[in-house]
Amino acid sequence: MTTEQLVEQIKIKNSFLCVGLDVDLNKIPTHLLKEEDPIFAFNKAIIDATHDLCVAYKPNIAFFEAYGLKGWQALEKTISYINENYPELFTIADAKRGDIGNTSTMYAKAFFEDLAFDSVTIAPYMGKDSVEPFLAFEDKHTILLALTSNEGAFDFQTKLIEGKELYKHVLETSKTYKNSENLMYVVGATKAEYLADIRTIIPNSFLLVPGVGAQGGNLQEVCKYGMNDQVGLLINSSRGIIYASKGEDFAEAAAKEAKALQEQMQELLKV
Amino acid sequence: MTTEQLVEQIKIKNSFLCVGLDVDLNKIPTHLLKEEDPIFAFNKAIIDATHDLCVAYKPNIAFFEAYGLKGWQALEKTISYINENYPELFTIADAKRGDIGNTSTMYAKAFFEDLAFDSVTIAPYMGKDSVEPFLAFEDKHTILLALTSNEGAFDFQTKLIEGKELYKHVLETSKTYKNSENLMYVVGATKAEYLADIRTIIPNSFLLVPGVGAQGGNLQEVCKYGMNDQVGLLINSSRGIIYASKGEDFAEAAAKEAKALQEQMQELLKV
Repeated sequence: MTTEQLVEQIKIKNSFLCVGLDVDLNKIPTHLLKEEDPIFAFNKAIIDATHDLCVAYKPNIAFFEAYGLKGWQALEKTISYINENYPELFTIADAKRGDIGNTSTMYAKAFFEDLAFDSVTIAPYMGKDSVEPFLAFEDKHTILLALTSNEGAFDFQTKLIEGKELYKHVLETSKTYKNSENLMYVVGATKAEYLADIRTIIPNSFLLVPGVGAQGGNLQEVCKYGMNDQVGLLINSSRGIIYASKGEDFAEAAAKEAKALQEQMQELLKV
Repeated sequence: MTTEQLVEQIKIKNSFLCVGLDVDLNKIPTHLLKEEDPIFAFNKAIIDATHDLCVAYKPNIAFFEAYGLKGWQALEKTISYINENYPELFTIADAKRGDIGNTSTMYAKAFFEDLAFDSVTIAPYMGKDSVEPFLAFEDKHTILLALTSNEGAFDFQTKLIEGKELYKHVLETSKTYKNSENLMYVVGATKAEYLADIRTIIPNSFLLVPGVGAQGGNLQEVCKYGMNDQVGLLINSSRGIIYASKGEDFAEAAAKEAKALQEQMQELLKV
């Protein structure tokens, strides 16, 4: 999917919501556990109930890998289900990968070719030759970790190098990478005020913003500092939506939560 | 496996060699392609031929994920084969993972419980709460990226924060993490002279050293600066061993390369 197509979808749906699929068998409704593939059954119901309220889905790869072969099967079925039934949805493999060149190429093949995701999240620690293999894929997007929403973000990401935080060096340096137009960035919502600074470095890039809701981020603040003239934001909510109810009504409850966020977004898009 | 058991194996085998399993179907002998599971058939032959010359195997997870479900199956079979037949071997999931707390816990379950690896490689960018979930597993080891062997290492890892390189901050900060005794570190062999400095920060930790051979690192130099009184080194070689021949003799050729490295290591252990 091209960035233009993503922006078009945001305008059609009046939403820049991304639904995170972090499926934990201990948290899904118990009646689903008797299904042959409970993870996929859960995802399918959530997707069918929310696809018109969001523009992106973000399966969290760890939650599939933790279930081994069955988990990987559920991941394949989930991404295929989205691509076949709702091809207008942008898909994010939240994988936090990154390795030396030939290994990154293999990860890129796994997520862009074998699974046919539109994008993948990548950690920047290993630098240029760990990121560029992902950028080489046309109409695919590499979402680089810049400033994450967790406490550990302050261990290294905000440390000063020549008077400037490491995450700003990540933003600036990554702009020099080949095919850097295929970059998006992860910026945590718990630090909304940082977004103004970030926008001076990468005014046009899309930002994937986790941490609204469960992690305490504020949607209005994020939009105030982070929105650009192409919207430029994908706001992720995982647990707040998918675990809204543990009963038979889980999909309806998820849709209700998604709808509430979509309506807030519609208001914010009017400004 | 405990660190003591690993050290014991090193002394028994006079080897601190780790064999990297980066299996690319375009590079393995063509006669294996008619096997039902060529990746596993290749790994099994390599493992059977080299297990007495090395102390560790390091499957590179990207090379399995790139083949989807079949790749994940081959990974499961490979790790099971090692654990069942050669339980004295230390196993490393070269996965370069790392995410916020509950997600890291899921990755830890995937590699330590479901697949039963002894260790996993982790990227430090997200800090403490992305690493500690891995450290919580008893007798399992978390191998943190410090200074990698690729060109991109100079993008961020060697940048100065308060007069000290980022990778040294990673070493120092990680020592304060809970259960930090379960940490090992990735340090690239292409920068052997850096090892003296690194040893002043982490004198006792094991270092996983990639980049000897194909990437140009020198074994003697690495040992001179990096060895400690418990040896403290695992030297990885992947392509130099597993792709020593593309013919029917690939396993014997791999053993020959492994033997050459093991003999060098035996000499270096005498010093």
